[in-house]
Amino acid sequence: MTPTRVVAFGGGHGLSASLRALRHCVPGLDLDITAVVTVGDDGGSSGRLRAERGGLPPGDLRQALVALAGDHPATRRSAALFQHRFAAARGSEGAAGGGGGADAGGAADPLAGHAVGNLLLHGLTELLGDPVVALDHAGAMLGAVGRVLPMSRQPVGIEARVRGADPDRPDEVRTVRGQHQVAVTSGTVESLRLTPAAPAACAEAVTAVGAADWLIFGPGSWYTSVLPHLLVPGLADAIVSSPARRLVTLNLVAEKETLGLSLPDHLDTLRRYLPELKVDMVLADSKAVGDPVAVERAAESLGARLVLAPVAVTDGTPRHDPAALGAALVPVLGADR
Amino acid sequence: MTPTRVVAFGGGHGLSASLRALRHCVPGLDLDITAVVTVGDDGGSSGRLRAERGGLPPGDLRQALVALAGDHPATRRSAALFQHRFAAARGSEGAAGGGGGADAGGAADPLAGHAVGNLLLHGLTELLGDPVVALDHAGAMLGAVGRVLPMSRQPVGIEARVRGADPDRPDEVRTVRGQHQVAVTSGTVESLRLTPAAPAACAEAVTAVGAADWLIFGPGSWYTSVLPHLLVPGLADAIVSSPARRLVTLNLVAEKETLGLSLPDHLDTLRRYLPELKVDMVLADSKAVGDPVAVERAAESLGARLVLAPVAVTDGTPRHDPAALGAALVPVLGADR
Repeated sequence: MTPTRVVAFGGGHGLSASLRALRHCVPGLDLDITAVVTVGDDGGSSGRLRAERGGLPPGDLRQALVALAGDHPATRRSAALFQHRFAAARGSEGAAGGGGGADAGGAADPLAGHAVGNLLLHGLTELLGDPVVALDHAGAMLGAVGRVLPMSRQPVGIEARVRGADPDRPDEVRTVRGQHQVAVTSGTVESLRLTPAAPAACAEAVTAVGAADWLIFGPGSWYTSVLPHLLVPGLADAIVSSPARRLVTLNLVAEKETLGLSLPDHLDTLRRYLPELKVDMVLADSKAVGDPVAVERAAESLGARLVLAPVAVTDGTPRHDPAALGAALVPVLGADR
Repeated sequence: MTPTRVVAFGGGHGLSASLRALRHCVPGLDLDITAVVTVGDDGGSSGRLRAERGGLPPGDLRQALVALAGDHPATRRSAALFQHRFAAARGSEGAAGGGGGADAGGAADPLAGHAVGNLLLHGLTELLGDPVVALDHAGAMLGAVGRVLPMSRQPVGIEARVRGADPDRPDEVRTVRGQHQVAVTSGTVESLRLTPAAPAACAEAVTAVGAADWLIFGPGSWYTSVLPHLLVPGLADAIVSSPARRLVTLNLVAEKETLGLSLPDHLDTLRRYLPELKVDMVLADSKAVGDPVAVERAAESLGARLVLAPVAVTDGTPRHDPAALGAALVPVLGADR
């Protein structure tokens, strides 16, 4: 029996939740998992690497690799190494060796805060000359149970036209630049674009989408992790023309960038940025969905059926529970066409 | 049949040559290989990490791990990653992202020159809290065919009293501090010491020495890679009291730190720094040995028999050929006591 080929789109924590949920399906379903990851990050360790050295921001790629890392104690330990962030050095004064000028701030402590896996992915890409080859090798190092691909081999910028980014000028629309700034804006995102406007899609991601049985969008930061994929022309074309069925997993709560955006609004944005998109299933948490009628109507306008299931952790925090989300996915992904 | 347990002592390139040679023995001999590595390096990437962040200098440990890395294409690729040095960043001007102050020199390019494996070993030690646990995991990542241990869990300094370090004052004796400075001194090393003078031996190394069938010293930088082990009291005691047989592999040419030191002098220094040391075999290159009588006499004064074999590469450069050195080791290590 050939495995069910699943491509999951996203960025940071949301994609990790989706991938961990897919792993929970595996005892019951034979899945071939590919993650396609946004490459717009410009904050933190990834942002520093990207600004100082170029190349793809590795953080979200690393998170996806770790979510797929094998269960063997050795690969779990390697995954912990990928996630480990270098501690602050023991103090810039009194460091042995001397000689070098004592520069301010990060200069005296250049490694602090970098995730080891980010440096490893950057070094692998330098060594092997290609981010996809590097990701495949990193996946092998982690015994990953799936493949991680970037949406594009080139890093992108994310820009948004935002109304009321300045709380003192609630009606002013201004351009907010950079994934990090868009993610934390307190205004209302009116439109989103990538720079460059039409980045080349990663060819291996296009191939995976064309061969997939299921495409999964979300959960995740809607503007900065979910929608960017639809703005890559080659990927958008592949998504629209793929014979795969399409599932959207909705978020549990609005994040800062999507405050004021209801769950039906989330679905509407998909159609706004990719009008040809048809969806088969929308999965939402039974409690988080609130009034299901409005969500159901928005789902139907994409061609989708709404499925409700308890997919949040039970401690009340707005996080998907991988086991619960996996349990909800099994009947969806396992259903005959 | 239990494997023959071999412990090889050394530092950088010399230890790598010894370990690669031991691997060449493996088709014919069943070997259990442990490398015990000096921890005095204060130059390059290791020196920067040690000065800025503390912990063991990882470079020589990394070299030993790579020499033992498995033959599978994936572990060979991981070994290449460990060895890869970050390139210089594409230039501090015009870097995307902006914002951060453009510091001078290394500050704008903090990763350049670091070996990825050095950062990985440093991060693993931070994560796992112990360098031996970290080295064992790194060995697993590389599919290593042996174990790599530091001679001490604490980094040490290397100091030498050197005559004529200043060419203008050939008779002046001064203290040269730091492994790197000792290795490149143009004077004559009159005495060597560690700081602290009596570092604690790595317990796992002491255990390995006590359980070994063979202890192998050299080749390598004599003062900075071979002799330091004999200056660690707990390790010296273990070496002297071990039931193992002992082999010294001599260098092919004098290095800068040992200019003026003949091959018999090399053997004499072993006895000088560890008078109780008895040696069973001294292995030297047939051509490099010059007059074998003097070397034979020095070997005999350690209790050893001199074995001559062609162990250098044939292109004329003064490097051991791992296959040739391995071929010379097989009858030595395989001989019944």
